[in-house]
Order: sequence, then C-alpha cells, then structure tokens
Amino acid sequence: MTGSTANWQAPEGRPAKPALTEVCPHFHAGIELIGKRWSGAIVWALVDGPLRFAELKRSIPGMSDRLLSQRLRELEEAGLMTREVEDGPQVKVTYSLTEMGMDLKPAILALREWACQWQESLP
Amino acid sequence: MTGSTANWQAPEGRPAKPALTEVCPHFHAGIELIGKRWSGAIVWALVDGPLRFAELKRSIPGMSDRLLSQRLRELEEAGLMTREVEDGPQVKVTYSLTEMGMDLKPAILALREWACQWQESLP
Repeated sequence: MTGSTANWQAPEGRPAKPALTEVCPHFHAGIELIGKRWSGAIVWALVDGPLRFAELKRSIPGMSDRLLSQRLRELEEAGLMTREVEDGPQVKVTYSLTEMGMDLKPAILALREWACQWQESLP
Repeated sequence: MTGSTANWQAPEGRPAKPALTEVCPHFHAGIELIGKRWSGAIVWALVDGPLRFAELKRSIPGMSDRLLSQRLRELEEAGLMTREVEDGPQVKVTYSLTEMGMDLKPAILALREWACQWQESLP
C-alpha cells in the first residue's frame, strides 16, 4: 500500500474507483429553475403550444392569479418563455415557450414517464 | 356557429384545437420533489453509484452538513434513497438510490443535456 494517492493503482483485476465528479453547476441551476414551486407545471402546460393566462390557470388548478403572474415573469426573465400582447377591443396576452424552453421537452417527458411509473410512491 | 360547445366542430379543413389538459399531478409532485434546493444535485451525485456522506459533500460544494443531512432524510422518506449503516471501529454510512431513484436517470441525463446546451443562458 502506498501513502501517495496520486500514484494509487487499483489492485490487478479490480477496476479503480472512478474519480468523484462534482455535480455539474449548469444542471444544478437548471433543475432548480424548473423545480421551483409551479414552474415545472407551467413549462409542462406550454410544451404543447402557446396559451392565454386563463387557459394556463385552467391547466394548473389550485394556483392563484398572483402566483401564476409571478412565475410567468420569472420564466420570462429566465429566457424560457415570451409573452405576446395583442391590442384590440380586448387585450389578448399569449404565453409561449422560447427555443430554450421548448428544448426542455425531452426532459419534461422523461420526468413525466418516471412520475407516472412511480405515481403510487409520490406524495 | 352553434352555442353548444359539446357539439362544436372545427370548420372543415381546420383542425380542432386540442382539449386543454390539466398538468399531470404526478409530474407536478415529482418535479417539485427533485427540484427542491439541492435535492436534484444529490440524486445526480448518486446516479453513478453509492456514496458516503463525505463523498457526497465533495460532490456538491457549498452545501452545509446540516442541509445535506436534512435533504438525505427527505429523499429517504420519499423513497428515492436508502442509507446503509455498517458497524465497526468506525461506523460507515453509505447512501444509495433505490430503484425509484435510479429510474430518474433518463430524466436527469435529459436535464443535464439541456442545461449544458443552454448553460450561457442559465443563472
């Protein structure tokens, strides 16, 4: 046995323990962005196409207007979503995912599959 | 135009707008579970195999002992992780993902890919 870890070699026939890697900071930032209360649900709702505020509210029951507005603002600031205001007798606001937001689709679908598979164990 | 939405038909040649679907509650529960501050990072660190407490700490710089302990307890309660205590002159505690936790791997990898692709836009 050697005292130096720099020269440490796995005994013959046993693979060396892989080096410990730090958690990717981008992953960390990303998962906390969409894991924030209700944010993932909003991205999910918009993955199939743009929605109006009232439609978003119907997609995510239990969320207050105030919180939905706040989360929409945060997602817009984070670059995941854009809002388009259409003037007229009645102002129409439509929310859409940006390219960055749409690129979340594979991750959202993988999470959905996992959540459905393990639904009985989830809170 | 008919006043009844039940009998509403899309005009010929135009597809009907798909029915608004509510966000899957399992997805909602799942994403908030692993999106909680540091929880996703811990799952990520354990995806490659079991780790000891000190190894987990090195994988996730900036996290306090107290918070790491708390998150580990929460992940254990949620059924994503187990801890194994090995008695001896020095007690060894090893943390591993359960089958439910390991099944998150595709979602974790998809999120990682997204986060790396959009790293310059992430906080």
